[in-house]
Amino acid sequence: MIIDCHGHYTTAPQALADWRDRQIAGIKDPAQMPRAADLHISDDEIRETIETNQLRYMRERGADLTIFSPRASFMAHHIGDFKVSSTWAAICNELCHRVANLFPEHFAMAAMLPQSPGVAPATCIPELEKSVKEYGAVAINLNPDPSGGHWTAPPLSDRSWYPIYEKMVEYDIPAMIHVSTSCNPCFHTTGAHYLNADTTAFMQCLTSDLFKDFPTLRFVVPHGGGAVPYHWGRFRGIALRMKRPLPEDNLLDNIYFDTCVYHQPGIDLLTRVIPVKNVLFASEMIGAVRDKDPDTGFYFDDTKRYIEAATTLSEADRFQIYEGNARRVYPRLDAALKARGL
Amino acid sequence: MIIDCHGHYTTAPQALADWRDRQIAGIKDPAQMPRAADLHISDDEIRETIETNQLRYMRERGADLTIFSPRASFMAHHIGDFKVSSTWAAICNELCHRVANLFPEHFAMAAMLPQSPGVAPATCIPELEKSVKEYGAVAINLNPDPSGGHWTAPPLSDRSWYPIYEKMVEYDIPAMIHVSTSCNPCFHTTGAHYLNADTTAFMQCLTSDLFKDFPTLRFVVPHGGGAVPYHWGRFRGIALRMKRPLPEDNLLDNIYFDTCVYHQPGIDLLTRVIPVKNVLFASEMIGAVRDKDPDTGFYFDDTKRYIEAATTLSEADRFQIYEGNARRVYPRLDAALKARGL
Repeated sequence: MIIDCHGHYTTAPQALADWRDRQIAGIKDPAQMPRAADLHISDDEIRETIETNQLRYMRERGADLTIFSPRASFMAHHIGDFKVSSTWAAICNELCHRVANLFPEHFAMAAMLPQSPGVAPATCIPELEKSVKEYGAVAINLNPDPSGGHWTAPPLSDRSWYPIYEKMVEYDIPAMIHVSTSCNPCFHTTGAHYLNADTTAFMQCLTSDLFKDFPTLRFVVPHGGGAVPYHWGRFRGIALRMKRPLPEDNLLDNIYFDTCVYHQPGIDLLTRVIPVKNVLFASEMIGAVRDKDPDTGFYFDDTKRYIEAATTLSEADRFQIYEGNARRVYPRLDAALKARGL
Repeated sequence: MIIDCHGHYTTAPQALADWRDRQIAGIKDPAQMPRAADLHISDDEIRETIETNQLRYMRERGADLTIFSPRASFMAHHIGDFKVSSTWAAICNELCHRVANLFPEHFAMAAMLPQSPGVAPATCIPELEKSVKEYGAVAINLNPDPSGGHWTAPPLSDRSWYPIYEKMVEYDIPAMIHVSTSCNPCFHTTGAHYLNADTTAFMQCLTSDLFKDFPTLRFVVPHGGGAVPYHWGRFRGIALRMKRPLPEDNLLDNIYFDTCVYHQPGIDLLTRVIPVKNVLFASEMIGAVRDKDPDTGFYFDDTKRYIEAATTLSEADRFQIYEGNARRVYPRLDAALKARGL
């Protein structure tokens, strides 16, 4: 079984973006603010957007199930206040829930949170609870920078984040650490801000005792861990210099890296440097990079091809990367699969 | 000949840090503001700090010459105003000039600039001119984020930076794109901010037409290019998606990556992905990572070992990385070497 731990609903019907545009207009002009109930998307529309996009590629490439969350760049937590984020997160999560309900064999849901700059993360708990209890979410996406590229929130080790972690531990769900659109002109969203956030979050963990306080907390650092595996020696050296344990001794019960790295040398490095038990198959399909590599004729984000071609991996390794690790990191997914006899 | 293109005077005599502390105190209390002339560092003190540190390691490891600039984390352009930065840059540059004068066979100088948040980069021209004309600087360090982790400056493609580029073209010198200390608690300076800045600067170039306006402009992206080589497929895919030329067709006459990557798999990836003509030997010794790897018994930042062990490199490749490329990217260094018959 091949589980892709990183997919977003980037192909939602246009009505969703239109509703969001009206909501953003409503921030300045309350008369224009739409109600959640004004959004109408039929099951057939959802089916069509999934079957002709993500599910088609999954079948072509041989992936079985995707952990599916709202479009990351559309979370845009920096827009409006908590109420705006709250309504938006509820709508987006419900849509992903419907995708998972319509295609239970192929999608499991992960929830976005209604984060908002300067607002306590604890305010996200009700949406998190609803997503897990009512929608069957197996994970959350946690944005370490709700400001969208201004980095005004405290590091992930700050106690203000702890209520989220307590709920994650209670429900035994991991968080993918995933920022959203950059509204800082310095940072290209998918080319700089995403990767920077991955590196930044890892370093916040390395320099803190977060996992002493939460020994079972699990973070998935997407996009192959940003710059982390490429600079693994640097991080080991910095840890030593800070008189802290080496990352391989201190962080790998809690931090996992996905395989959203879009060329063979990158995947080769990732699987050479990071223990197989910490690598989770993912493609972020359909995401930032959706064309074919003119050099190979294959899609950049068809990451299964690179895993297959990685010469240092055994079949047992590939099983861990494709399925075994995901069942361990996402126990609610494992339980759901077992309930279906899988 | 082995040229290390990335070294900082991290071992300057304590008097320098003491003077800087007094200068910082003087920002709030002008009565405490020291004059530049209050700093006294003898040639013998400089000799001692170099001979027992950088030069000792260069000899042990077999490097001949280091392009040597003021300590990057001490630039701290976010502290004080332009006048504070200006005095500080003048002092730090003069010290590096003295190092190069005392050890002309082993050090060539690169200059820091007196950048200051919100102040036009053009104000840095006099210090740049003095450094090249009077001090023999062969390069500059350019900080894309003088705010120290708040990223309030416009991208490097903004026209406010152009006066710097015009001078670089006039003098035929490259810039290393190098940030300084992070004063944003989200970003660890050497573990996150440095690497993020490298990735960010590369992406600012990829998404702009900067090198159309300055076809001969040359940037050295340090720390192995941040996340760039590891995610080379991602950058190629994003460029395609933006209907821009592929980075290998568009950026590699202008952008170079150093080898400050502190483990073998990282150097292997760098030299596999990035054309040899764009890789410059460097160690950033003595820098952020100054211990020995407990697994190998060798210094993390002894990057020559990794270059030597990279199986895909020929001797001709190593010559390019160690010397040939540096002579091309730093023509003023090449001229100085040739004037000495080298």
